[in-house]
Parts: sequence; structure tokens; C-alpha cells
Amino acid sequence: MTHPISRYPIPDLKDVPADVRERILAVQEKAGFVPNVFLVLSHRPEEFRAFFAYHDALMEKKEGLTKAEREMIVVATSGANNCLYCVVAHGAILRVRAKNPIVADQVATNYRKADITPRQMAMLDLAMKVALRSHEVGEADLDAARKAGWNDEEIWDIGAIAAFFAMSNRLANLTSMRPNEEFHLLGRVEAPARK
Amino acid sequence: MTHPISRYPIPDLKDVPADVRERILAVQEKAGFVPNVFLVLSHRPEEFRAFFAYHDALMEKKEGLTKAEREMIVVATSGANNCLYCVVAHGAILRVRAKNPIVADQVATNYRKADITPRQMAMLDLAMKVALRSHEVGEADLDAARKAGWNDEEIWDIGAIAAFFAMSNRLANLTSMRPNEEFHLLGRVEAPARK
Amino acid sequence: MTHPISRYPIPDLKDVPADVRERILAVQEKAGFVPNVFLVLSHRPEEFRAFFAYHDALMEKKEGLTKAEREMIVVATSGANNCLYCVVAHGAILRVRAKNPIVADQVATNYRKADITPRQMAMLDLAMKVALRSHEVGEADLDAARKAGWNDEEIWDIGAIAAFFAMSNRLANLTSMRPNEEFHLLGRVEAPARK
Amino acid sequence: MTHPISRYPIPDLKDVPADVRERILAVQEKAGFVPNVFLVLSHRPEEFRAFFAYHDALMEKKEGLTKAEREMIVVATSGANNCLYCVVAHGAILRVRAKNPIVADQVATNYRKADITPRQMAMLDLAMKVALRSHEVGEADLDAARKAGWNDEEIWDIGAIAAFFAMSNRLANLTSMRPNEEFHLLGRVEAPARK
Amino acid sequence: MTHPISRYPIPDLKDVPADVRERILAVQEKAGFVPNVFLVLSHRPEEFRAFFAYHDALMEKKEGLTKAEREMIVVATSGANNCLYCVVAHGAILRVRAKNPIVADQVATNYRKADITPRQMAMLDLAMKVALRSHEVGEADLDAARKAGWNDEEIWDIGAIAAFFAMSNRLANLTSMRPNEEFHLLGRVEAPARK
Amino acid sequence: MTHPISRYPIPDLKDVPADVRERILAVQEKAGFVPNVFLVLSHRPEEFRAFFAYHDALMEKKEGLTKAEREMIVVATSGANNCLYCVVAHGAILRVRAKNPIVADQVATNYRKADITPRQMAMLDLAMKVALRSHEVGEADLDAARKAGWNDEEIWDIGAIAAFFAMSNRLANLTSMRPNEEFHLLGRVEAPARK
Repeated sequence: MTHPISRYPIPDLKDVPADVRERILAVQEKAGFVPNVFLVLSHRPEEFRAFFAYHDALMEKKEGLTKAEREMIVVATSGANNCLYCVVAHGAILRVRAKNPIVADQVATNYRKADITPRQMAMLDLAMKVALRSHEVGEADLDAARKAGWNDEEIWDIGAIAAFFAMSNRLANLTSMRPNEEFHLLGRVEAPARK
Repeated sequence: MTHPISRYPIPDLKDVPADVRERILAVQEKAGFVPNVFLVLSHRPEEFRAFFAYHDALMEKKEGLTKAEREMIVVATSGANNCLYCVVAHGAILRVRAKNPIVADQVATNYRKADITPRQMAMLDLAMKVALRSHEVGEADLDAARKAGWNDEEIWDIGAIAAFFAMSNRLANLTSMRPNEEFHLLGRVEAPARK
Repeated sequence: MTHPISRYPIPDLKDVPADVRERILAVQEKAGFVPNVFLVLSHRPEEFRAFFAYHDALMEKKEGLTKAEREMIVVATSGANNCLYCVVAHGAILRVRAKNPIVADQVATNYRKADITPRQMAMLDLAMKVALRSHEVGEADLDAARKAGWNDEEIWDIGAIAAFFAMSNRLANLTSMRPNEEFHLLGRVEAPARK
Repeated sequence: MTHPISRYPIPDLKDVPADVRERILAVQEKAGFVPNVFLVLSHRPEEFRAFFAYHDALMEKKEGLTKAEREMIVVATSGANNCLYCVVAHGAILRVRAKNPIVADQVATNYRKADITPRQMAMLDLAMKVALRSHEVGEADLDAARKAGWNDEEIWDIGAIAAFFAMSNRLANLTSMRPNEEFHLLGRVEAPARK
Repeated sequence: MTHPISRYPIPDLKDVPADVRERILAVQEKAGFVPNVFLVLSHRPEEFRAFFAYHDALMEKKEGLTKAEREMIVVATSGANNCLYCVVAHGAILRVRAKNPIVADQVATNYRKADITPRQMAMLDLAMKVALRSHEVGEADLDAARKAGWNDEEIWDIGAIAAFFAMSNRLANLTSMRPNEEFHLLGRVEAPARK
Repeated sequence: MTHPISRYPIPDLKDVPADVRERILAVQEKAGFVPNVFLVLSHRPEEFRAFFAYHDALMEKKEGLTKAEREMIVVATSGANNCLYCVVAHGAILRVRAKNPIVADQVATNYRKADITPRQMAMLDLAMKVALRSHEVGEADLDAARKAGWNDEEIWDIGAIAAFFAMSNRLANLTSMRPNEEFHLLGRVEAPARK
């Protein structure tokens, strides 16, 4: 009854283009295992490259939102989109980045109950509206975020992360992408495996 | 930023009726801590008694569904209702009962992706329809469950558990019931704290 | 084309446990007939006991909301959940308790159009949110109820009644529980049959 | 707390155009009272004329659906649209036309539980889809109705009645049209007041 | 793969009642072609008459809303109801009436992004609520429209047009009414074919 | 009342990185104007690069779906997401690619009514489910697409395009991206301006 990691074939590492392979080996070196999203998307190298370039532009950025805040957006919107891969994998990253073993479960299930700041709550209010009813986003929504202390470049980041994972959640649901078992525990106990 | 365990006051254990106190002490003895639902509902002893009598009638029953299957229903429908307390607390119990550290995360986020049997999938299909669109439940839904191997008494249990947690989720959301931190880790590592 | 009163068997009165039988006979004595919910649930005595203990704790309470107000919550939320049994049976009880032959039809179809007080309207606003989107209930909702004159214990009652009938509606829809024909007319004409 | 019959002014009968007045007097003669929809729409004589011409073309037609079946469509779709006026007024007409004191309450709350024929159930399945998701109506829906015994002209009637009351429900909700108290009881007791 | 103009037969012009034929010839004379709605509804002459009498009462009225504003309501609500005929046909009329080649595409897709006045935006806010959630329309919605400069008779028009096209959209979806190809281009280029 | 092309500043062409500028000049050369999405995203060069790399991987691919079919997916899902920019801009591209002046209006409003093949209809059924309820996509959906003649690599494309524009629609709604006026007419008249 254990599901495979993708509905699609996973190529042998030796058969993927060198840059894709290097990225995969680098993440393995850093995390201790290869998150399945790298393997699943390696079936399409060109899309793999664009996906991770986009991902890094939004998630590895240094200014503005902290990395934990970026992951909160991923976890909250992925929960709303019922995306198993992203809730579990980014839930783990959120725990590690926030050094908080319970916040990911809170944000994934109902961010309104999470132990976060009012500013982060306003961030998630906006992100969830972009995720679920983006056509209704208007100046009032942006003003609420501004009032909570976010500037317009940060607001772009909030919305763009919600948008990027709207795509990512749909790809994961389409391919039935399975999270690595390591993610379920990562960041829940004292010495996380991740550096 | 840490939320209290309830919007309502929690009575001192010495001030609650003896039978309520005994139940609380018994669960503490067994689990090693007092799940917050016992404390939150002790604010209303009469409702406390009826709640746990109903809970036990549905969740402690020996025939038919296994205890793990009963918890799967709780976790799947509580995820759909965005109930933090029930997803986290019953997620832990599901992990313990199923001796499976990852199934609760799967069921809570998207049961269609869970490592469960087709019979359990049919059980959750019915439970989710009772939880979300019970007025549309008809003979076709019952027939699908029967075809997957469930008899009519088991179907009552499936529906009744979904119904009971429709109530429970709403009470938890109303009182803003906070799950004990212990639950987040319980059943995820090899030797669970629970006897 | 007349539907039976339940999808499940109804036990003979002589075969049910004594306490269940006594409760059934008592309600028959008082109402002049046995509301079908008693018969349908007598198929499961343990659940019967817990159900009515919970029901009575919430619906027979003397302080706070009037009995008519409690029934308004039942009728409004059962209408939203398309539960035939509860709309018809509790609609009758509401007419009797409120001594008002039309308010139940109003509340069941669209409570916003009902001839009720602004305080009762605020009560139903909160009850409907608990019934339909409990995960979004927040301090603003409670403040709106408080501003309309409800205290926090009354707010618990409002939410708990909505929650209990979230369960009850699902049980009635699952079992396809049929309201007694008597309920359709009860309280609509000058001398209601009920004492 | 009693709501007026309309948000808009009701003209004096002597001030409305003769044909409108005659229609109002005729219905009063026949029913014993003037249903409020005639008074509310007399504020706009031109719309009044078109409304009732359309209404009569669909509801007074002799071939195909019985008059009771036409009213079933009105009551089911008006329940789904939460239109108090139409549920109560057409519920009364349905009781009278079907000579059945309880079918209107069934159809208004959940037509799936009503004591109607499978052919009528298929009629309401189609009507509800036209009312709620008409853009998804396709050949499969028409085929289901045909299979239940409806011909294509009858299918037009089913859909057109659902469509007309989609309009009517919205007008009643906009004007906050109040049903006459007479309707609540009409057709529930043995000798209905209507000829 | 080209769809017919209706699921139902279109009568020969010589076979329809004289008044219906005259109306059809008049519109052909004026527009240069016969919009398919006239042909599709001529299958039911009595309904044809009521439909266009109602249509004209709402859409040809001189006071209050401009003709372009009336068409904006049609296009916005028809977009929300996914009605191909009305979006395309009334989109064309809106372009002609507003002398604006792009506003119909804006209003049909997301009126919040349209180049319209705040007063027109408030008009569409109300019309969309009547179209989609009329049971929730309350004094606060009317007050918002009044604050934007609409009087109560204009508000009736706004709501009545939304209601009429709730019907019209459902009829068009039921009959699978196909817009004339002429409409797609009408009003987009400098010298519209329409006089 | 004319909206700007973005809520965010548009950099001077001379201030953007050379590769971004070259891409913009190339599209201008080819199309005769610069589609606003290039200008709006040039505010964020790194995201611009990833966005168009991803876009090209999915939309410029030669095997499998035709370019017109790829645009159908964009237009249908963007209509469902109420994204003005994508409906108008990709509607134009669809008209040009399909050499069909009306299909984009059909697909944007209700693809079920479009003049497309059954195979394309199955393609859009799947794309819309990925766009709107991706967590429910299962083997039955893939089988329906396969039965209509799509292979698994084409199914990835269908889903990935729906997913990419789930992101794109949200970015456009967040930035309030305005379509160039040229798009509204492009491909509607005989000699489209596009080469």
C-alpha cells in the first residue's frame, strides 16, 4: 500500500544532464538525503532548471521576510491546497528555520491558531487570499499588510511565494509526489539532522 | 505569542466534580499527561460527561473498525474542518494505534495519498462526505462502502464518528483549544511515551 | 414512495434497555407521540444515552438563552445543513416555545429575514459561523456577540448548540431519519397538542 | 420586530394601472387574500405585467408536468436559494396542488428525502443543477431526465421554471419580500381555504 | 465541431405568430442580423413575448442608469455565471453603448480591474451579490450603493437586471444557446456595423 | 479611470539587465509591441528569467500538444481564475495560433460550449481539475484523458501548463497587471498584425 514517489518515471542519476545531477548531489550533501521533488522533476530537466531557479529567487532571498516566514507561507497555502508533499517537506524546513518543533503543524492546519506574531498573521492573511481568491485581492488587502508593517517589495514576495506554490502544489498533486519519510520527523527533535 | 489552551477558564482540579476529576487523573496516569480537551471541557462538567460517554461509545468499541481506523476518520475529517486540536491530538493517537509514524500526516493533509488499503480509502470517502455534504449522502454512497467490505453496522460507526467529530471540531475551534505539545511528537519515534 | 423512519432497524420497545425504554415512554407521555429520533437512536443504546444527556445539558438549561432561542439555533443551522428531521421537529418545538407560528419557517429558510431581535440576529450570526466555517471564528465574532449583549457563558452555549446539531444533522442525514408527521403541524394552530 | 412586506413602497390599489389592479382583485377573489408578490411588484407596473405573463406561461401550462410538479421545482430551488417568500408561498401552493400537507417541507429542506416518485426526483436533480450550476448542464444531465421519462419539451419546462425562479428568488431577496402569514398554514389542514 | 445555435428546434419564421415574427424582423432591420436569442426563444412564443417585454422594461428604460451601465451589469453577472451567449452578445452591446472597445472584456473577466468609475464599481458590487448570494443582501449592501450615489429606484434596477439575467443565463445554458459570430467583433473596430 | 499596467514600478528599459532587455526587444520586434507581462516582471529580473524559462519550456515545446491547444489550457484556466491579463493576452495568442477568431471567447467563458474536438474537451476537463481541485485528481482523471488519446507525457504538459498559469494568474492579479490594448483585437480580423 506504499505509494511510489511519483506517477512518472524517475531517471537514473547518471542519465540526467550534468547541471541537474550536480544540483541533486549538492542538496544530498547538504541535507543528507535527496528530497523527492528533485528526483520527480528531473524527469523534465528544462522544467527542473526553471522551477529551482524560480524557487531560489523567492525562497533564498536575504532581504525582507525571514526564511522561516517564507516557509510559513508555503506551509499555510499548501495546507489549504491539500498538497501532501509541500506540507510535509516545507513543514520540516519551517521547523528547522524557525527552530520551533510545533509551528508547522499549527500553520498547516489553521494558521489563525498559530503561535506567530500579528505581523506574520497579516502576512498569511494576504498569502491565503492570493492562494485562494486572488481575483478579489485589492488595495484594502495591501493596506492591511502595510499597516502590519510590510512594505510593497515584501508584499510582492508574500504574493509571489503564494503564487509559486500554487503551481508547485498542483505539480505535486498531479504527479502524486510523495514526501521523503525523513521530512516527517525533521526539526521535531532537539538536534535536527540538517546543518 | 503562545496561545492559552482555551478561550475559557480552566477550573482547578480540586474544584471539579469527583467523577470528572477521576477521569482526568485516570487519563493522566495512562498517558503521562492530561490532554487539554479534558481540562477545557471540565469547565462544563455535565457536557464533559456526555462528551466522553459519547466519545468512548464510538472510539473504544471493540467490534468492526480497528481503533486505528476510527482514528483515521477523526484525523481526515478534522483536517477538512481545519481543527488544530483534533488533527494534532488524534494524529498522535493514530500513529500509536497504527504503529505508523507517517500515516497521520498523510490522512490529515490528503487521505487520497495515504498508504492505506482500498477498504480504508472507501471508509474515508464516506466519512468525508458525511463530514462535508451529509445531505447528499445516498444509497450509492452506502453501496460503495458495502462493496469495499463494510457492513451496515460498521457504516453507522463510520458516519457516527465523522458526525461526533463534526461537533468536536466546532467546540475546539470555538474555544480555541490548544493541543498539548506532547502530541506533536508522540508516535513519531521508536519508543512512544504512551503505554 | 413514503420513506421509512430510518435506514437502520428500529428495535421493539420491549427489547431495549430499561432506561432507554423509560425515556421513550416519558417523552410519549409528554408529547403524545414518540419523536422518531428516540426510536432511531434506540438501535444503539449507549449512543442514545450519551446523545440525550448531551442534548439535555444544552437544550434544557435554565440560565442564559431562552428555550426558544436555543431552538432558533437548531433550526437555523439545521436549515443550512439541509437536515429534514431537525428542521421539521425542532421547527415545531420552536413554534411552541416561542408561541409564534411562523418564526420557524423564517429561521429555517433565511434567518436574516426573521422577525427576531437584533440580539437574536447576532446569536444566529455566530451560530451559523460555528456551523459552517468554525475554523474562521475569531475574537471579532465573539466581540460582535458580546456587543449584542451575550456574555461568554452564553456564547459557549450558542456555539455548543450549533456544534451538537452539526453532529445531530449528520446522524439524521446518514440514517435518513424521517420526522413524525405530527411535527409538521405542531404549533401552527391556536391550541398546540403539546402541554 | 415584524418586517414590512417590502423594502420598497407599496402603491395604493387605486393608483395602479387598471390591468394591474384587475389582476390583483382577481387573485384576491380566488385566494381570499392578495399574495404580497402582487403588491410588491405593483410598484413597477411594466415589470409586474411581464413577470406574471412569464409566470403564467410556465406555471399554468396544461401539458406535461402537473401543476404540483411545477411547484416542486419552485420550492426545491427556492430552498437552495434561501428565498423566504417563495419557499413559504409556493410551499403552500404545492401542498394544495399535491393535496399533501408535508411534501413542501420535505422538498424545501432536502428534496432527496421527499416522498416523491423516482421520475420527480430526476426532475428535481435537473432543476437543481440549472439553479445552481447551469454552466455545467450537459447532455448527460438531459439523458438522465429522458431516462426517467421526461421528453425534451418537458425538460425545457423543468429548466425554464428553475430559471424563472432564479430571477424571482433574487427579486424577493432584494426587496426583502415578506410572505403573507396565510401561506404558512395553507394546505396543512383538512379544508384548505383555497378553492 | 461547430455547435448548433440551440439544443431545441428553431421554427421557420413563417410558422411563428405574427407579433413574434415582426419583432424578429425589426431587430434584423436594426442590427443587420437576428441575434440567436430571438430565434431560440421563438420556439416558445408565449415565453418569447414575456421575456422580451421584461427585457425591454429593464434594459430600454431611459431614467437612472445609462444603457451602457445596464449592459455592464449583464456582462459582469453573465461572466460569473459562465454564460457564453450573454457574455458575447451583451459584451458587444456594451462596447457599442459605451463606445469603448475593451471594457466588456474587462467586466466579463474581473470587473474589479475594469476602467469604470467608483460609482459603477459599487453598482457591480451590488449586482454581483444579487447574482451570487442574494440571500445575504442586506441594508449594508444598499447603503454602500447609496453612498456611491445610487437612489433606491436605481438600486431596484441594478438588482432587477442581475435577477433577470440570472434567469437568462440559465435559459441560455440549458438550451446551449450559441452567440452569433457577428457579436464577437462588434464594437471592437472603429465603425461598428450597428447604427 | 484607466488603470496603470502594474501596481509596481516599471523600470526604464535602459536600467534592466542586458539579457532581460534583449528578451524584451526581441518580443517587441516579433509582436510589434511589448506585452505588459515583460515590463511588469522586469521589476524583478531574477524572477523574470525563471518565469520565461519556465513559460518557454511549457509553451514553446514542439512535441505533443499543438501550440493552440497549449493556449486553450491557459485561456480556460485563466477564465476560471478571473485573470484579466491572461484571458485577454493569451486569448489573442490562441486566436492567432488556432486561426480562429471566436474560440478564445468560448474557451474563456465556458469551455464546454467551445467548438473544439472531444479530445481537446478531455484535455480541458483535466486542466480545469488541476487548476481548481488538484488534490482530487486521481487515476480516473488520467484514464479519462488517456481514453481521449493523450499519452502520459502529454498529460504532464496539460497539468503543468494549468499549474504554471495558476501561478501566473495569481501574479497578474496581485500586481493588477493590465493587458495591452492591442491584445483585445489581435486575431479577430483577417490579417492579424502578428507575423
